[in-house]
Amino acid sequence: MEFDLIERYFTPLSLGLPEGDLSIGDDGALITIPPEHQLVVVTDTLVSGVHFPHETRAYDIAWKALAVNLSDLAAMGASPIGFSLGLSLPKTCAESEQWMADFSQGFHDLVASTGMKIPLVGGDTTRSDILTLTVSAKGVVRKGRAVLRSGAEAGDIVAVTGVLGEGALGLALALDTLSTELKTGLSEQDQRHALNYLNRPIPQLAMGQCLYPLANSAIDISDGLLQDLGHILERSSMSTGKPLGARVELNDLPLSSGVRKLVAQEALWQMPLSGGDEYQLCLTVKPENWSALQALAAEHDVVLSRIGEITGYAGIELTLCGEGDAVPDFAGFQHF
Amino acid sequence: MEFDLIERYFTPLSLGLPEGDLSIGDDGALITIPPEHQLVVVTDTLVSGVHFPHETRAYDIAWKALAVNLSDLAAMGASPIGFSLGLSLPKTCAESEQWMADFSQGFHDLVASTGMKIPLVGGDTTRSDILTLTVSAKGVVRKGRAVLRSGAEAGDIVAVTGVLGEGALGLALALDTLSTELKTGLSEQDQRHALNYLNRPIPQLAMGQCLYPLANSAIDISDGLLQDLGHILERSSMSTGKPLGARVELNDLPLSSGVRKLVAQEALWQMPLSGGDEYQLCLTVKPENWSALQALAAEHDVVLSRIGEITGYAGIELTLCGEGDAVPDFAGFQHF
Repeated sequence: MEFDLIERYFTPLSLGLPEGDLSIGDDGALITIPPEHQLVVVTDTLVSGVHFPHETRAYDIAWKALAVNLSDLAAMGASPIGFSLGLSLPKTCAESEQWMADFSQGFHDLVASTGMKIPLVGGDTTRSDILTLTVSAKGVVRKGRAVLRSGAEAGDIVAVTGVLGEGALGLALALDTLSTELKTGLSEQDQRHALNYLNRPIPQLAMGQCLYPLANSAIDISDGLLQDLGHILERSSMSTGKPLGARVELNDLPLSSGVRKLVAQEALWQMPLSGGDEYQLCLTVKPENWSALQALAAEHDVVLSRIGEITGYAGIELTLCGEGDAVPDFAGFQHF
Repeated sequence: MEFDLIERYFTPLSLGLPEGDLSIGDDGALITIPPEHQLVVVTDTLVSGVHFPHETRAYDIAWKALAVNLSDLAAMGASPIGFSLGLSLPKTCAESEQWMADFSQGFHDLVASTGMKIPLVGGDTTRSDILTLTVSAKGVVRKGRAVLRSGAEAGDIVAVTGVLGEGALGLALALDTLSTELKTGLSEQDQRHALNYLNRPIPQLAMGQCLYPLANSAIDISDGLLQDLGHILERSSMSTGKPLGARVELNDLPLSSGVRKLVAQEALWQMPLSGGDEYQLCLTVKPENWSALQALAAEHDVVLSRIGEITGYAGIELTLCGEGDAVPDFAGFQHF
């Protein structure tokens, strides 16, 4: 019976709430929010065939669905306290013990990797022909200490965690859309790293919790650096009523070994600039707070790279070795 | 552009949070939980073709998706404070202004009907071939005052709000599975009432907030009275370690005019006993608290009917005019 399977594999994920709270087994979950904190709620929906190929492993689907939510919490500076799951499953998945075991293991291992308690706090499982997951993660942040998209100021340093373009490279490998020439330039390790990065992103939770009060704004890079930096500019301009833009130096973008090769070979800058699926943080910080934030990042073993600055005029300007004219043309940006 | 449409229709639903809180526009929503309260989280997933016919109106889909969540909050004794939405939309819906307008109106009108502030606090919209919604509603309840499934005791009165079987009748009419003979026995008004009840259930929020401390346990009837009462018995037995059961008198089941006719004509007791889609509350209450709870229900214009009692032995026993032998055989229970 599939519901026995679901119960067997999901119940262990739901443990760890304090006495008096309740995860599953009633009409709803009961969760105590610590005093002087605000609840943070994030929601992401993943559809098979849209957000991941149909043949993706159950383990990776679960890992990624939760990781992208935790990444949103990280970008707000929040600590996760639990997640709920709306799951629509084809019969073949629901009735396969192996599939359910792998799927729940993906959640388990991601949570274990964070070193935090992030229990499953309810949800709903239904039948559907298309595997669809809506994960809604809940976090908490001290009242007034959330780091928003809307706080960037002219003069801020723009920085990112980790490397850029690796998710896009992983996707290109998964969908086999790289030319043979480009692909053969990559080592096996480059390829394995990119695929792993695509399927099992690591949310920057520790860094997220270092943001307040040093960073002025933050966002997680899920739609690509330029688009997400654009969201920061848009929200921050709206909140101050002043035009804001950014200057980004291509040579300062942190790249993995694989992406570095593709950029050297064919100037595929669109990978680090527009590739989604990064789940790194893009943040802005006053110059006087930069070294303190760098020190905190180093303490948590997070690579934090300065890639540009916020300007007082609209638009994102790209430079290569400091020169705008040297930037290659990005027509047909989305395709590689 | 579809995302303009989504923004245009969803943004108005997201208003109403207090200063310092945030519904949409950032990586996550920020919500202040009042002191000494617990957060209550409920989640329901609805899939087109599984939970509602493909041709269901957008308005009704939205209404129902939120209503079934609010019904879960009601059953916990919680007050709603917002909801998030994971929405997977076929192209034809996403690109239709009429569809988006109807859909958002369904949420709006249900919220307006409750007289409460229940803002949309974020979510995610994606493309899919199958319309799938996961609504996760958030509520609050004073710490320790949630009414759980697990509190029933032998001797409790079993009661239900509203009428039973009406959702099942509505579904039978929507799917046209009633025999012509049975259908012709129903007036136009019976049919309209049942369809309306199926598509736009009214969550018993006011009654939910009267439950503590009078009711010992409560659940919302989404799977059918017998199954949901069974959940109360199971959880309550687990929590006390003693066997518990219930005796339910068929003549005491509150029935609508339509269901009453079907029961009279063909003894279709399975409609009120096993029909899902009720979204009424089933609760248990000590006899000494019964008249106080009845008075509260009357104050809120809620019909509250005593239908049986909790026993000290396992199993649900049905009686007709007090006699178990008079109960018709329910083989083939699920089919009508």
